[in-house]
Amino acid sequence: MKKYLRFIVLGLAVCGLAACAGGPYPRGAAGILVFQSDFSLKDGAVSAMKGVAIGVDRNLKIYDLTHEIPAYSIWDAAYRFYQTVEYWPAGTVFVSVVDPGVGTERLSVVLKTKTWQYFVTPDNGTLTLVAEKFGIEEVRQIDEAVNRRLDSEKSYTFHGRDVYAYTGARLAAGAISFEQVGKALPPRVETIGYQKAAFENGALFGNIPILDVQYGNVWTNIDRAVAEGMGIQTGNVYTVEIFNGAVPVFKGEMPFCNSFGDVPEGKTLMYYNSLDSLSFAINMGDFASTHGVEYGGEWSVQISARPANTKPGPQKSPGERSNPGAKEKGGT
Amino acid sequence: MKKYLRFIVLGLAVCGLAACAGGPYPRGAAGILVFQSDFSLKDGAVSAMKGVAIGVDRNLKIYDLTHEIPAYSIWDAAYRFYQTVEYWPAGTVFVSVVDPGVGTERLSVVLKTKTWQYFVTPDNGTLTLVAEKFGIEEVRQIDEAVNRRLDSEKSYTFHGRDVYAYTGARLAAGAISFEQVGKALPPRVETIGYQKAAFENGALFGNIPILDVQYGNVWTNIDRAVAEGMGIQTGNVYTVEIFNGAVPVFKGEMPFCNSFGDVPEGKTLMYYNSLDSLSFAINMGDFASTHGVEYGGEWSVQISARPANTKPGPQKSPGERSNPGAKEKGGT
Amino acid sequence: MKKYLRFIVLGLAVCGLAACAGGPYPRGAAGILVFQSDFSLKDGAVSAMKGVAIGVDRNLKIYDLTHEIPAYSIWDAAYRFYQTVEYWPAGTVFVSVVDPGVGTERLSVVLKTKTWQYFVTPDNGTLTLVAEKFGIEEVRQIDEAVNRRLDSEKSYTFHGRDVYAYTGARLAAGAISFEQVGKALPPRVETIGYQKAAFENGALFGNIPILDVQYGNVWTNIDRAVAEGMGIQTGNVYTVEIFNGAVPVFKGEMPFCNSFGDVPEGKTLMYYNSLDSLSFAINMGDFASTHGVEYGGEWSVQISARPANTKPGPQKSPGERSNPGAKEKGGT
Repeated sequence: MKKYLRFIVLGLAVCGLAACAGGPYPRGAAGILVFQSDFSLKDGAVSAMKGVAIGVDRNLKIYDLTHEIPAYSIWDAAYRFYQTVEYWPAGTVFVSVVDPGVGTERLSVVLKTKTWQYFVTPDNGTLTLVAEKFGIEEVRQIDEAVNRRLDSEKSYTFHGRDVYAYTGARLAAGAISFEQVGKALPPRVETIGYQKAAFENGALFGNIPILDVQYGNVWTNIDRAVAEGMGIQTGNVYTVEIFNGAVPVFKGEMPFCNSFGDVPEGKTLMYYNSLDSLSFAINMGDFASTHGVEYGGEWSVQISARPANTKPGPQKSPGERSNPGAKEKGGT
Repeated sequence: MKKYLRFIVLGLAVCGLAACAGGPYPRGAAGILVFQSDFSLKDGAVSAMKGVAIGVDRNLKIYDLTHEIPAYSIWDAAYRFYQTVEYWPAGTVFVSVVDPGVGTERLSVVLKTKTWQYFVTPDNGTLTLVAEKFGIEEVRQIDEAVNRRLDSEKSYTFHGRDVYAYTGARLAAGAISFEQVGKALPPRVETIGYQKAAFENGALFGNIPILDVQYGNVWTNIDRAVAEGMGIQTGNVYTVEIFNGAVPVFKGEMPFCNSFGDVPEGKTLMYYNSLDSLSFAINMGDFASTHGVEYGGEWSVQISARPANTKPGPQKSPGERSNPGAKEKGGT
Repeated sequence: MKKYLRFIVLGLAVCGLAACAGGPYPRGAAGILVFQSDFSLKDGAVSAMKGVAIGVDRNLKIYDLTHEIPAYSIWDAAYRFYQTVEYWPAGTVFVSVVDPGVGTERLSVVLKTKTWQYFVTPDNGTLTLVAEKFGIEEVRQIDEAVNRRLDSEKSYTFHGRDVYAYTGARLAAGAISFEQVGKALPPRVETIGYQKAAFENGALFGNIPILDVQYGNVWTNIDRAVAEGMGIQTGNVYTVEIFNGAVPVFKGEMPFCNSFGDVPEGKTLMYYNSLDSLSFAINMGDFASTHGVEYGGEWSVQISARPANTKPGPQKSPGERSNPGAKEKGGT
């Protein structure tokens, strides 16, 4: 009994940041594996990935982020990571399979963030936002000669199952260390350009990273810290402009509120969403479809105080400020 | 070894009704957490809630009831609980986040039923049917000063993640006792009015709590015990009338059958559904969309024997009998 | 401590093919339960099944194959098994509930394949493809007098929850042995007829078992071994014909490629899918909806080399070769 307890204590110590109650797993692994893809749940692809993972270690805790990423949308994959991963423990291994370039020369990598989480994915822009938000600790290229499901060499197209799910499961279970994933790469990932959140010339500028699709709310990347630069206050009314590239899509005024119930049904409001970022909504309505607003690297917003007593000085047009949708190689 | 066994035996004893094989968990907790929401699985909201729960205790058994409740539909939330929870073990903690009034004055509560299950939810009508069916053992208001995720004080809008998922996980894992949820409230919950199942004046009356959406079958709340009051018999034909408030929507005749295969394809039938309640269907067809039938507190049905030899006496109109959709505060 | 270790070692030995780390479970059970149905995730039916399973043993590892099988489509159920189950460990118990004949005379069975996996399902054609691919070790009829949820005798229509989920969970947890499922039947299952993959008279013949719905790719059942009979080669162009029964639906030419990126966007290609079977796609497009192609037992394809130097000899018409959709009783 003593030995058993000692082993558990040792396991917990090895774990470092991550609590290890579910294991114990070797090499400090946390035993938690989270999948994301654009496969939908209609066919057997997600199940095949989970079966492979369970075959590696049936005690893995396997969860889904979402499998309803729009087909081929790397931006969505990037944003879902950004939105979610901070709520999962250190040591969690995330596997993302949104891979329009499958079979081309994009690299298969594992990113370890400075917050000690792991991201298994094609390096195609999916890591844009988590790398920026949480910092790159290290990037390794998956050595597909050894880190692939047995007998899967002939399969050209399902990296999700044969390489990513398999490698993610082995990493989560401690069957391999992070070093055994493959050789270290320079600490950079492929990124997608977009309008960063900023307070300039008396106005707030930002991107529309995503819609809250179920309710049609429009989210921005302007968080509380940036927004407070303009001294944004509950009850005040602001002018909101939305652009697709350089094309104006919406212009209107709305109050900043603490909650939807602060305006009548059918009225617009600006509020902090669950990620503490400025968002636009219609109480009990659908702002996005009502005003034809979408999202992605090429969408931007400008928020100014009303009345026009804070006249914006000469400034760059939306097109000049952002680099919509363009791929670039960037570190953090 | 002996001590280890003694600890397990003690744990099982503490558990009371719930078997504890998955734990052992302190305070008799069962370690089972079931989520329900109107978030859909398209974005990261459900995943964020699960991440928070796993952060509380990675050995929790986490499951979903459904996340495809129509946006803001408290009635659906109430009905999904009613339909499902009896199939889960005692000690299970259910978390429901259908919360159109988020940010307003509705209370955040945990209901403990007389069947020893726990329901974490805004008290907005979601508990109408489980409170009525399983009985209120105790209701406590969540003390959000202590029962909320660390550093979440600034977030106004995602109670699902910061309060409900967190509190549900801690309760399921035994990190807090039921008493530590917060102060006890009077044993009442907010309820939504609807036509109760009844046999009166030779006819059956009831509500349409839900459709079996995948197949378009129409379910009622008239269970076998009530239906047998009218002596309902296999093979007999009955007259069915359906109302939306006081507006007649359908009137027709159909046989009562044991299974769909008892009528030809395309023909209507009445049968007991998987909850042992009277339901209407078209064999291999969609009754609801064919006849424009929907569901909710304001929908009601009347079933009479054919021929008109059981003439209903003077009776209340549908509008008089029910209190469609109205909110009221009721005990059980 | 020694005794504890010895017990674990014994458990592992008993397991045979299946690793048992998750248990230990009695009778060599693997503790893994995978559900499939046409229920969708919109209501509480799937959750009720899982609740019943958790009530049997809360340590079961419960996963989903898919619950978005089109309503009543036995062919889809058969194909999803075919596509997925080989990626799950030996000992896994699969429960499938696609049951248009519920309440009629179809049998409730458990198939054990030669690969030591278990399939709990109505015997209505759902087992067509797994029985053929993995071989029938034994078929047993579920004895519903003993293998049904307590107090569920009155319920006519939800076999999924009361019989299949309950029996599958008990089998997965080792609460019953395979023999205790019920009496052994002849080693046969109900099957659905379809065009087998073949290389004949210089051309490849096959079935369209499924579409890759998310992307609109068309999959065939012609695997690499059969395709290589025609000496299929990367970069060569082939003539593809698609039939619905005897009706021609598509005829065109396309190259055989290793990956989508080998053709420009919008162009058709032929490739090996993740199951190593020939498939047709439009790069970044939707082949199936563009050309009106569907799938099932009655759909067939013919692939010939271009130019017409490999003139097919006299051959059977598509209608003669296949037996589209017909049910038959077949062994393996």
